[in-house]
Amino acid sequence: MPPPATLSASSSFTLLSPSPSPKPKFPPFSPKRHSFAINPRHHSLHSVPSSTVRCAVIEKETPEAQRPDTFLRANSSSSSVRARFEKMIREAQDTVCAAIEAADGGATFKEDVWSRPGGGGGISRVLQDGAVWEKAGVNVSVVYGVMPPEAYRAAKGAAAADHKPGPVPFFASGISSVLHPKNPFAPTLHFNYRYFETDAPQDAPGAPRQWWFGGGTDLTPAYIFEEDVKHFHSVQKSACDKFDPTFYPRFKKWCDDYFYIKHRDERRGLGGIFFDDLNDYDQEMLLSFATECANSVVPAYVPIIEKRKDLPFTDQQKAWQQLRRGRYVEFNLVYDRGTTFGLKTGGRIESILVSLPLTARWEYDHKPEEGSEEWKLLDACINPKEWV
Amino acid sequence: MPPPATLSASSSFTLLSPSPSPKPKFPPFSPKRHSFAINPRHHSLHSVPSSTVRCAVIEKETPEAQRPDTFLRANSSSSSVRARFEKMIREAQDTVCAAIEAADGGATFKEDVWSRPGGGGGISRVLQDGAVWEKAGVNVSVVYGVMPPEAYRAAKGAAAADHKPGPVPFFASGISSVLHPKNPFAPTLHFNYRYFETDAPQDAPGAPRQWWFGGGTDLTPAYIFEEDVKHFHSVQKSACDKFDPTFYPRFKKWCDDYFYIKHRDERRGLGGIFFDDLNDYDQEMLLSFATECANSVVPAYVPIIEKRKDLPFTDQQKAWQQLRRGRYVEFNLVYDRGTTFGLKTGGRIESILVSLPLTARWEYDHKPEEGSEEWKLLDACINPKEWV
Repeated sequence: MPPPATLSASSSFTLLSPSPSPKPKFPPFSPKRHSFAINPRHHSLHSVPSSTVRCAVIEKETPEAQRPDTFLRANSSSSSVRARFEKMIREAQDTVCAAIEAADGGATFKEDVWSRPGGGGGISRVLQDGAVWEKAGVNVSVVYGVMPPEAYRAAKGAAAADHKPGPVPFFASGISSVLHPKNPFAPTLHFNYRYFETDAPQDAPGAPRQWWFGGGTDLTPAYIFEEDVKHFHSVQKSACDKFDPTFYPRFKKWCDDYFYIKHRDERRGLGGIFFDDLNDYDQEMLLSFATECANSVVPAYVPIIEKRKDLPFTDQQKAWQQLRRGRYVEFNLVYDRGTTFGLKTGGRIESILVSLPLTARWEYDHKPEEGSEEWKLLDACINPKEWV
Repeated sequence: MPPPATLSASSSFTLLSPSPSPKPKFPPFSPKRHSFAINPRHHSLHSVPSSTVRCAVIEKETPEAQRPDTFLRANSSSSSVRARFEKMIREAQDTVCAAIEAADGGATFKEDVWSRPGGGGGISRVLQDGAVWEKAGVNVSVVYGVMPPEAYRAAKGAAAADHKPGPVPFFASGISSVLHPKNPFAPTLHFNYRYFETDAPQDAPGAPRQWWFGGGTDLTPAYIFEEDVKHFHSVQKSACDKFDPTFYPRFKKWCDDYFYIKHRDERRGLGGIFFDDLNDYDQEMLLSFATECANSVVPAYVPIIEKRKDLPFTDQQKAWQQLRRGRYVEFNLVYDRGTTFGLKTGGRIESILVSLPLTARWEYDHKPEEGSEEWKLLDACINPKEWV
């Protein structure tokens, strides 16, 4: 399940995920291994020097028998935004998993808990081959890390122009989930909410701290039921409208732009909302907004599943769903910044790739017949529509 | 089917494939659109400036009702290496397709022929959902293009140090194929042979021309039948040994190194041979060597298929094959230079992605039981073996 790199499994927020592999992918760059992440907010992935990427060594995590009350370091205040965000995503994980298990009607999530010696950890939950879902992952994680100063351009005011800042400690926490149902009329859902905070650079204690929120919820059906898509988008809009009337139109477009499979000139699905690097609003307001979004996942999604999970379907309709799953794979492996960066930097592969569907399909030069239901879905992926 | 970008579907030789799309992916960078390719021999893909990539506009190709005798420009000599290489790959395409159809016992290849106004063209053949193969593509192509001078560092002796060379015309031709059978005991085969030649830079007529050969043949089974792998590798070794005793060990290792899924620390399959940029041997000798390699495809592969195509198998064995197909997708979408570059530069998507299997599968944290047949395959992908 997505630890931070799955956190970033479909976002532009890139963190290294912890690696349970006994064999480090990269040699340590100092006697004691460090964990750090690069924040592509200030760095396009392509502009990260390969030497930096090669230095990315991940502190090994330890499996835990039980969930701790918190993954925060011992000296953390329970009233901090960090603590309240962690509490929120863990409650959201419980709520979403309970709703998925109830709707699936039998299958249960397998849980992996892990922590890291320097603080932080996560809870991964995967349900595979259920009655309703072929693969469902819901993960939360908390990461303490240090990022190279090159990744901290926002802090440039923090140090004198002629003074190169040192490594920047950061805190990141998030929930990430991909839910792939079996029935071709039941849509895939992805959501991800995350909070990021830096400390001052190590040699510039007075420098300002940075923080921001990111995330989104998006729907990927193989067939359009207009009432379903309208319902999904209207729940997203309601969540947004409680905070700012500009949020929904802005984050809806951001979502359409982000989940774009350039080589196909089509989107992965029918969108939803997506935002990143949000810090130009009150911090409490954004914490409430992220909470509202996470709490909207179940009401936005589960009613659709209830309506569609038992519809009869043909082999052809299943094959079309599988072709769309192929597109999901293409987006995640070729474009998703978290996935591609996580793969290159030695994150936990199974966590990063849990976002991939159980099964997918590629046919040569498949073109749905114009006017068919398949064609209508493709058309809506090529030409994003306003649903509410 | 793989035009040049499938040509390069699993090689480090990257060419833009022609786009049949009526809608160019990128705006033309001059009133008359040019076609060109970037040769990563001299350029890692990451070092290609994005502005260059954005300039990569592909001349639109025209579907042809019939195969022409040659895709070479009218003034070409039939005794040139270009002409003889084209003849060789077209004969190899016919031979391989005939052998595949015969072994499949019913299904036939669908053919697409295309040409480009400025010269060049190709023949794509795809067989889908046959009795034996779920997806088989065999493609030949001939491309005339112009590459940016930045891609032509080998020509640096050609121009005075203070004189920046102009665009470099090139010629490229190749055959590329991926054959995915249905039976989990019948292995996937990939092969690709290509020849590349430059003219002198446009403003340095006296500069030396460059040429080189590349290619390889590799086997990707889901289960190891040692006699099959030994047979396959021994045919490759025999082809190599006719020319140079150092070829097989060198190209076998090159193959293991190239088809490496770094994030898994495992190879895509059990290798074969792979070489690129070969020009430090007699040109006639290398043409004969490439011919020998292409002629070895059928005897190396089809006897294996005949032995395995009708073996009974379980659902579990089919699922394991599908998991290995997932690895094939991961390699091709994440690492294969031709695929990733082709996707970014607007090549013909269906041609680039014909290398993907019809179906693939990803299970969370799947680990074969130690000592099982699945584990033995994985072990051989992690620790390449000497088979002959």
